[in-house]
Amino acid sequence: MTSPDKIWTAGLIVIGDEILSGRTHDKNIAQVASWLQVQGIRLTEVRVVPDVESRIVAAVNDLRAAYDYLFTTGGIGPTHDDITVDAVAAALGVPVVIHPEARALLERYYATRGGLNEGRLRMARVPEGSELIPNRMSGAPGIRRGNMFLMAGVPHITAGMLDALTGQLEGGAPLLSETIGGWIPESEVADLLRQTEAAHDSCQIGSYPFFRDGRVGANFVVRSVSADDLKACCDSLSEGLTAAGHVVTAGGI
Amino acid sequence: MTSPDKIWTAGLIVIGDEILSGRTHDKNIAQVASWLQVQGIRLTEVRVVPDVESRIVAAVNDLRAAYDYLFTTGGIGPTHDDITVDAVAAALGVPVVIHPEARALLERYYATRGGLNEGRLRMARVPEGSELIPNRMSGAPGIRRGNMFLMAGVPHITAGMLDALTGQLEGGAPLLSETIGGWIPESEVADLLRQTEAAHDSCQIGSYPFFRDGRVGANFVVRSVSADDLKACCDSLSEGLTAAGHVVTAGGI
Repeated sequence: MTSPDKIWTAGLIVIGDEILSGRTHDKNIAQVASWLQVQGIRLTEVRVVPDVESRIVAAVNDLRAAYDYLFTTGGIGPTHDDITVDAVAAALGVPVVIHPEARALLERYYATRGGLNEGRLRMARVPEGSELIPNRMSGAPGIRRGNMFLMAGVPHITAGMLDALTGQLEGGAPLLSETIGGWIPESEVADLLRQTEAAHDSCQIGSYPFFRDGRVGANFVVRSVSADDLKACCDSLSEGLTAAGHVVTAGGI
Repeated sequence: MTSPDKIWTAGLIVIGDEILSGRTHDKNIAQVASWLQVQGIRLTEVRVVPDVESRIVAAVNDLRAAYDYLFTTGGIGPTHDDITVDAVAAALGVPVVIHPEARALLERYYATRGGLNEGRLRMARVPEGSELIPNRMSGAPGIRRGNMFLMAGVPHITAGMLDALTGQLEGGAPLLSETIGGWIPESEVADLLRQTEAAHDSCQIGSYPFFRDGRVGANFVVRSVSADDLKACCDSLSEGLTAAGHVVTAGGI
């Protein structure tokens, strides 16, 4: 039996010089975050670190101690800058081994693509004690070791791996959210937002301003694990904004 | 006099529940990273943390000790979930004070927009000992305190603040990069990449595979602070790829 009140948490490590140089715009934070929400798991911290073993090891050890699950993206390919497996094995104090099933998968995949070479065989290496995460997009699988999940850096391959993990992880009640928006300067309604949040214990209200078509607006996102509390809080906020003379759009702008 | 060989480093903390929920796709990591490259400063670590004071404090204390500069984005607006100033002040052990120049700026800005209220006055609060970073886009300024820079979360406002800081920070030689691409499976050339990098001491080679139009390709990014070394390494890699029968596109695909 699981406790329905437990809040399950996850950390994510995005590995790669290309993100820290600004060359590549990360897409994995948002997709891992959205996927975790649906699993009833809260993404609680993200770290982006370079392709340097000691830096990956430090992040792995910090985050695996702090959260229920740890995900990584990047650095599991065939080239010399792909060092995630080595770093995770070092962090756990276990050797790197060739996973026989991964080797067989790669042999089949590359049978018609020039055969298995040293670089390609790198993608069968795992920290000892690991299982594989299916990859329907290309040859190399992701890696699961206990509550750690090592995934690809290329976003659509990561998406396939997440899909394969859907429903496999224990989670809690998903965090629900509802958005209310308006052409409202958030600074005019800051008091109302704070008071409304304070009056609804299980809810958080986030305020996200925007500037569009030369006008100022904001979306207010209410979050709660309770559908009833969420509705009560949204209704109260909506009434308050309307009473203050604002036009409110359900679902946000 | 500055040492030309010093590598200047920076950490970035992205603050906000909206990034960790997947609701908002972060754009600040890439724009801060790219801007830092031009200043001769390397973005070395990013952390994304929620709107929780203790979590921001911990990240601030970790990263300000580890790097030459620390940037934050998000949480400096007028609403109750904007707690970056309080968290940074707590991390530094200094009080939060009203910055008189920020107050004057906000008074002018809101004079024709309904006047200064309690929420808007929040945006004049700074950790004691801070200067302001100009904001040409909207009323509230960014905040500089020593080597820490607190910036907006809305990307185009952040962009304006970065622009105001251009050339103001001491940095080293900018990291140069050159890209070579091809419709080349990276797993076929992993050995060549590793050997080429090993033969060019001051250079790093990153390999970034992609799948496009049903075909497999990769871009190889060579980085160095030395223009001569960069050229030598790129030439060598390009020759190696060509000798292996690949068609190489300078600048990448």
